[in-house]
Amino acid sequence: MTYRELTIEGRNAVLEAFRSGRTVDKLFVQDGCKDGPVMSIIREAKKQGTIISFVSRERLDQMSETGRHQGVIAQAAAYEYAQVEDILQAAEKKGEAPFVFLLDGIEDPHNLGAIIRTANLAGAHGVIIPKHRAAGLTAVVARTSAGALNYTPVAKVTNLSSAIESLKKQGMWFACADMGGEVMYRLNLTGPIGLVIGNEGSGVSRLVREKCDIFASIPMKGELDSLNASVAAGVLAYEVVRQRLVQGSSS
Amino acid sequence: MTYRELTIEGRNAVLEAFRSGRTVDKLFVQDGCKDGPVMSIIREAKKQGTIISFVSRERLDQMSETGRHQGVIAQAAAYEYAQVEDILQAAEKKGEAPFVFLLDGIEDPHNLGAIIRTANLAGAHGVIIPKHRAAGLTAVVARTSAGALNYTPVAKVTNLSSAIESLKKQGMWFACADMGGEVMYRLNLTGPIGLVIGNEGSGVSRLVREKCDIFASIPMKGELDSLNASVAAGVLAYEVVRQRLVQGSSS
Repeated sequence: MTYRELTIEGRNAVLEAFRSGRTVDKLFVQDGCKDGPVMSIIREAKKQGTIISFVSRERLDQMSETGRHQGVIAQAAAYEYAQVEDILQAAEKKGEAPFVFLLDGIEDPHNLGAIIRTANLAGAHGVIIPKHRAAGLTAVVARTSAGALNYTPVAKVTNLSSAIESLKKQGMWFACADMGGEVMYRLNLTGPIGLVIGNEGSGVSRLVREKCDIFASIPMKGELDSLNASVAAGVLAYEVVRQRLVQGSSS
Repeated sequence: MTYRELTIEGRNAVLEAFRSGRTVDKLFVQDGCKDGPVMSIIREAKKQGTIISFVSRERLDQMSETGRHQGVIAQAAAYEYAQVEDILQAAEKKGEAPFVFLLDGIEDPHNLGAIIRTANLAGAHGVIIPKHRAAGLTAVVARTSAGALNYTPVAKVTNLSSAIESLKKQGMWFACADMGGEVMYRLNLTGPIGLVIGNEGSGVSRLVREKCDIFASIPMKGELDSLNASVAAGVLAYEVVRQRLVQGSSS
């Protein structure tokens, strides 16, 4: 497992960090900030015995990695990368067929954060990202995930195509977002599934693509040829949600 | 109509601006940039008689509003806001029931750009935004729209709820994204529809909400309570796309 120092910035993200039970080592609050959301954060911090420092806005601006701290920065025990096995166990514990996102080289931390947030809300059991040529779990990711990092395990693997191969041996299917594929509404996306989302510019890499079982396209009716990566991930993930709901209600 | 000066930054956005026939007054290219995408842009610029200047990276950095120019910045004839009537006419011309996005106070330009991009790809005929308390069509929006601004009309209205009222008189229905609403898969979202997407933090405002006919919720299975605004818009828009496709194939 990899550990890293993490500062959590912004009110929602800091509050979620406390509420999820994450160990927050230190909390920095802007002098004079006393509105409701900040008071809730301070209450949570006191409950957990977190050291609270009131500092100037300039000091917070200096500490901030995202430039959008909204008056609060927390220094937390680092986000921990999960193991792929943890993700499968989470599915098993819920008695659900595994539903996993695999991100083949998402580089924009805003996209990565938004996708982890979507994974949480779509009921996916985890997210797998590659070690190289991809955004890691930075403060921007934590913030844009709106707290999802506290709940949805993210595993980092050296080689995405070997990870797919080993998960296939455990009965999973892999669907790759692909413009040339079959329209997603016509595919069967129920069952234990991994959604493979490609890089913002170059899509899914050849080696990863070759391991996929299903090629799913999102209908494109306009003049452009691709959605924003986090929007595409959301649209595809919710087709999985819809199909699972339909299946659940008809069985 | 409002006009404003616009710089277009980044390779995709600049290339799309040329291809869509937009008048580009000046093109700035980073000295020494000669890769494929940049050469295509230069070819398009020559075809249109655009003045091309080769400048240093430092100069481009200075000019850049987004900080991500990728070696090319174009100064274009300004984006023009459309009229709401233009959007309805676009639908009529295609022989389709109107499909419009109404954004009630999207503040983040990245979200606005991603939503306009989604509107284009989901086959919506236009986007309506309010004059106040919302992001306008800045360079960041143009860039994150990946060129969609060249195709998808964006109208700016003083009052969103009066706009809804007048569109309702013309036979449109309005569906509001709302956590407390009916699950979207169970609603009928075909027909002439306006999707109302709320502000990132506070959702749809009360006055706008009161004008809506349908309250559609996206199923939320995780610990958080809302998707990123542009992801939510995408998921909801594609449910409209799916229902229209199903209807089209069964009729």
